[in-house]
Amino acid sequence: MKQQLAQSVLHMMNQEFCYALEEDYIKIKLRVGKSLCSKVRLAFVDKYKYLHQRATIEEMDMELVAQDEAFDYYEGIIENQKRLVINYYFILETKQGEFYYGADRLMEQAPFDIRFMYFLSGNVLRSQRFSPISWATEGIVYQIFPDRFDCGEGGTQKGDWSRKPSPMDHFGGNINGITKHLDYLQELGVTILYLTPIFESTSNHKYNTKDYMKLDPSFGTMEDVKNFVQQAHEKGMKVIFDGVFNHSGDDFAPFCDVVKKGEASEYKDWFQIHSFPLETDWRKEPNYGSFSYFAGMPQLNPDSKELRDYVKQVIDYWMQETDIDGWRLDVADEVTHGFWKEFRKWVKANKKDAIIIGEVWYDSREWLKGDEFDTVMNYDFYYAVKDFLVLKEIDAKEFINQLERLRGMYHKSAYEMLWNLIDSHDCARFLTDVGENKNILKQAVLLQMTMTGTPMIYYGDEVGMIGGPDPDCRRGMVWEDEKQDKELLEFYKKIIQIRKAHPSLVKGELLSKTEEKSNVLIFEKKWKEEKMLVVINASKESYTNSEITGKVDMLTGKRIEQVEANGMCLIQKS
Amino acid sequence: MKQQLAQSVLHMMNQEFCYALEEDYIKIKLRVGKSLCSKVRLAFVDKYKYLHQRATIEEMDMELVAQDEAFDYYEGIIENQKRLVINYYFILETKQGEFYYGADRLMEQAPFDIRFMYFLSGNVLRSQRFSPISWATEGIVYQIFPDRFDCGEGGTQKGDWSRKPSPMDHFGGNINGITKHLDYLQELGVTILYLTPIFESTSNHKYNTKDYMKLDPSFGTMEDVKNFVQQAHEKGMKVIFDGVFNHSGDDFAPFCDVVKKGEASEYKDWFQIHSFPLETDWRKEPNYGSFSYFAGMPQLNPDSKELRDYVKQVIDYWMQETDIDGWRLDVADEVTHGFWKEFRKWVKANKKDAIIIGEVWYDSREWLKGDEFDTVMNYDFYYAVKDFLVLKEIDAKEFINQLERLRGMYHKSAYEMLWNLIDSHDCARFLTDVGENKNILKQAVLLQMTMTGTPMIYYGDEVGMIGGPDPDCRRGMVWEDEKQDKELLEFYKKIIQIRKAHPSLVKGELLSKTEEKSNVLIFEKKWKEEKMLVVINASKESYTNSEITGKVDMLTGKRIEQVEANGMCLIQKS
Repeated sequence: MKQQLAQSVLHMMNQEFCYALEEDYIKIKLRVGKSLCSKVRLAFVDKYKYLHQRATIEEMDMELVAQDEAFDYYEGIIENQKRLVINYYFILETKQGEFYYGADRLMEQAPFDIRFMYFLSGNVLRSQRFSPISWATEGIVYQIFPDRFDCGEGGTQKGDWSRKPSPMDHFGGNINGITKHLDYLQELGVTILYLTPIFESTSNHKYNTKDYMKLDPSFGTMEDVKNFVQQAHEKGMKVIFDGVFNHSGDDFAPFCDVVKKGEASEYKDWFQIHSFPLETDWRKEPNYGSFSYFAGMPQLNPDSKELRDYVKQVIDYWMQETDIDGWRLDVADEVTHGFWKEFRKWVKANKKDAIIIGEVWYDSREWLKGDEFDTVMNYDFYYAVKDFLVLKEIDAKEFINQLERLRGMYHKSAYEMLWNLIDSHDCARFLTDVGENKNILKQAVLLQMTMTGTPMIYYGDEVGMIGGPDPDCRRGMVWEDEKQDKELLEFYKKIIQIRKAHPSLVKGELLSKTEEKSNVLIFEKKWKEEKMLVVINASKESYTNSEITGKVDMLTGKRIEQVEANGMCLIQKS
Repeated sequence: MKQQLAQSVLHMMNQEFCYALEEDYIKIKLRVGKSLCSKVRLAFVDKYKYLHQRATIEEMDMELVAQDEAFDYYEGIIENQKRLVINYYFILETKQGEFYYGADRLMEQAPFDIRFMYFLSGNVLRSQRFSPISWATEGIVYQIFPDRFDCGEGGTQKGDWSRKPSPMDHFGGNINGITKHLDYLQELGVTILYLTPIFESTSNHKYNTKDYMKLDPSFGTMEDVKNFVQQAHEKGMKVIFDGVFNHSGDDFAPFCDVVKKGEASEYKDWFQIHSFPLETDWRKEPNYGSFSYFAGMPQLNPDSKELRDYVKQVIDYWMQETDIDGWRLDVADEVTHGFWKEFRKWVKANKKDAIIIGEVWYDSREWLKGDEFDTVMNYDFYYAVKDFLVLKEIDAKEFINQLERLRGMYHKSAYEMLWNLIDSHDCARFLTDVGENKNILKQAVLLQMTMTGTPMIYYGDEVGMIGGPDPDCRRGMVWEDEKQDKELLEFYKKIIQIRKAHPSLVKGELLSKTEEKSNVLIFEKKWKEEKMLVVINASKESYTNSEITGKVDMLTGKRIEQVEANGMCLIQKS
C-alpha cells in the first residue's frame, strides 16, 4: 500500500502542478493512484515567518477534480497574501492512516523541517501567470480555407465549383468571397474566423510561402483584407491568420538566394542546411531541413537572429495593417521554444488580447506554460470523439477519462481555450468518417458545444458537406440553397445559441454520471446556480433513466420518453 | 500488476526526460516502479518516413542507470541522424508479459498509430542542448568570505583576528588578502575561487548591496581585483563572484529615491512596492517585497525593463573589467525565470564558458533546463551527508538512493557540475556539527572527492576550523602554523590529487555495492578501464570483506586489514 502510494503520487514544482491565478491566488495540484486516498489535505506555511517562528502550518482540504483509469487528480487554491515563499506538503488520508508527501518523499510523520516540504515563490509564480482571453473562451471558431469558400468581387472562379478537388487545384475563392458571407456567419453564431494561409504562394493551400509580406494576388488586395477584418470586427467577430514559420516555400526569395549562391549567401543562416550545394530535386531527400522531407518546403532556422527579426517584421506588418486578432501556428511543435517565447512578445506587443494557437497534435504541456501559446488545436478531443462515436473503440467512461486527463494536465487558462475540433483541412470530414450518419455528427457537435474549450467548426460541416482525406475534405463551399442541409444548419444555430446563453457549458465544472462499461455518455455541467445535463447515446439500444424521463429536451423542445440509439438530449436542471 | 505499472511509469516530453547530447545524440529516460520490469526497450521511428511508409520501427535495450526506494530509472541514447521528428514508445518486459507505454498510456498491444507514441523534434531538442563546462566539471571550488580570509596590503585589520565574530563585526579582510595566498590555494589543489559578495555594502557579508558598480572600499581598489583575477588565472584558477540580484540594500540609491519621492520616483518600478509611503522601520514588516521580510533588503523587481538594463550593465562591467569566470546567484529561487533566461544571455555573451550557479536549496529542475543556470549548490548532497554521517538518520543504502535520485532527475550536464558541499557561510561548519570528530569529516570529504559533481571546500575546513551557525561559521581564517591541523591539510591535498588523477571519480558511473540496512557505504566508480572502490564505515563496528582485505588503501598507502568504525578506504581496482 505505501509503495503503491509512493509510486503513484506525483507533484512537481512547475507550472503544470502549481500556478498563480488572478488576485494572488495559487492553484496547487496533486496526482495520486486511483482511490488510494479517501481525502487529501494541503498543509502550507509562510517560509520565512515559519523560520522566524512567527507562523504555524495551516491546512485545507483539497478537491478531487478529475479521475481517469489510473489516477485521481486533486486541486487546492490558496490565497498567497503577498507571501514571499510558501512551503507546503500534502496529507494523504488512506485506510492505513495518514501519509505525508513533500519534497517527493512519502513520509509517515508530518515534516517539521522545510527541506521535507515543497517550495513556491510568489514572485516566480506571479511572473508566469497567464490568463484566459475572454473572447476566446466564450467564442466559437469557424475555419475557412479561402480558395474554397467563395469567389467574391475581383476574383475569377476556376472551373466547376462542385468538383472533387485535386491536390494542385485552384477554385478561385478570395477574401471578398468571405466578406460577402459575414451575415451568414453572424447568423450561424460563430465569433472567430480562422483563415488558413493567405500570403503569396503558388499552391491552393498556401502552406509554402513565397512572400510573407504580400497577400496572395489571387485572394485580392490589401484593401480587401482590411475591409474584411474591419467588417468582421463590426459584426463582433475576431479574425485569426495562419502563421507558417516552420518552413517557407522553395520560391521564398532568401531560399532562392541560398540555392543560387550557396555558402556565400547572406541568407544561409535562415535555413537548416546540412551541406552545399543544395539538392532541391523534389524526387530526392533534400540535404536541408524541410517539412516532412519535402524539398519544396525548406525549414526556417528559428534560432537565427536575422530570421527572427524578419518574422517580427511580418507579425508587426500584418497586425498593424489589418488589425487581426491572433495567429494559428502551423507545425508549431517543430519550431524551437526560444523562438515561440519571443514570438509571443511580438504578438502581445501589437495587441494585448491577441491569441496564439499552436498546431500540436499531442500532449502540448511544454508550450502551454504561459510564455509561448495561449492554447492549441485540441486533437486529443478529435481523437476521443472519433474513438467513441465513430470507431466505437472506447466506451463512454474512457471518453470522459481521456478528456478529464486534459483538465488534469493543462493550465486552467489554456484548457478553457482549447480548440475542440471534430475535423479540419488536415483530415476527412467527420460526416464522411461516420458514413454520413447525421445523427452521429449531431452528437459530436453537441459534445463540442457542451464541453469546456472553444468549439471549432470546419467550413461547410454545418450544411452537411462531405469529403474524405486531403484534398477531398477541401471541396468548394456549398452555397446553393437546395444543396445545403437546412435542418442541420438550424441545429448548429440552435446549439450555438444555447451554448452562448449558458455559461455552465462554456466554463462549468463537469460531473460525469456515466456508468462503467456503458456506451451512454452522461454528464452534468455546473456553473453557479446553473446545471445542465447532457446525454449522448452511442449504444445500440434506446436509453432512459428517472432523471431524464419526462424532462424537456432543449434541442427539440419536447418531453423525453427515451434517448434513441445514436440519439441525445440536453436538459436544463436548474 | 498492470495498475501498479500504469501508476508508477513516468515519462514526459520535456528536458527532464528527453534531451539532446553532443553530435546529434538524444537521451531518453523512463521512470518505473521498482523491480516491476525485468527489462525495458525503447522503440522508435522517423515520424515522416513512417507515415510515408519508408521506415519501420527500430528497437533498442534501455539501461537501468539508477534505483531508489520506489523506482527504477532507465536511459537510452539514440542517434538522431538529422531526423525531423522521432516517434517513440517503451516496451516494458514484466512477469505478466510485455506492456507498451506511449502517449502516457499503458497498452497491451504495440501501438501502430503515432498518436499512441511520444514525439520529439530534433530541432527543438538541439536548440535546448546544454553542455558541461569542462573546467567546472573537473574543478574543485574553494569558497572565500573576503572579510575573514586575510588582511593584505592596503587593508586594516580590525581587532583580534581569532575572536568569535558578532553579526555586525568587521575583521578587515580584503582582496589583497586573498591574492597573497594564491600559492597556498594552488598547493591545496583548488581550481575555482568563489568569493561571497564584494560590492559596496555596509555589512561584513555584503549581501545588502549599496552600489553594484563599486567594489567595497574596505576590500581595496579595482586594481587589486584585476590583479587578483589575473594572478589567479595565471595559476590556472577561475574566479566566481556572488551576484545578489534578488534584493539590494536599503541604501541602494534607487531605493533611497523611492523612499524619498514615493510614487513620483522614476525608480519605483525597480522594486516591489505594495503601498506608499514606504514603511522602512526595521522593527516592522515592510510594505514592499524584501528578503525574508527584512526592511533592509528590498527585493528588486526582476521583470522591470529598466532594472534588467541596469543589471546587464553590472554584469558587463564586472566581466569586462575584471575578466571573472562566472556568477553564483544568491536567493536564486525567488527571482523570476524570465529574468534568469535573459541573465544567462548577458553572461554567456561576455564569456562563452562562464558558469552560472544558482543558490537553490531544494529540487532545482526548473532552473536546470539549459536556459537559466548551469548548475546549483547541491544542498541535497549536504543534507544526505549530514543525515548519513552526522545525524545517523539514514543508512548507507538510503544515502545512495537520495543521490541516485538526483542523477535520475537532473540533466547530465547540470548533474556533473553540481557543487557538492558539506558546509558554507550559511550553516555550521561540518567539523562542529560532528562534534569535532575529524575522522567523520574525512569521510565526508572522501565523499565529496569521489562522487560525481564539483567538490566545494569552505575556507578553513581544510585546516580544521570550527564554528557553529552564522555568524560563528565565519571566523577569521587560521593562518598560524601551530593552529592549523597540518595532518588534515595533507589529507585534503592528497585526496584532491587523487581526484584529479582519476577520471572515474569525476565523471565515472557509480555502482553501489552497499548492502540493505547497513551503515557501511560501498560503491565503485568506473570510467573506461579505470575502476575505484570506496568504503565508508559509518557503523560502530569495524568492517571488511574479501574484496577489501589485503588491498592497498590509496589514502594511507598501507594494506587493509579492516575498515575501522568511522574509518574509510579507497582502492584502485583497475
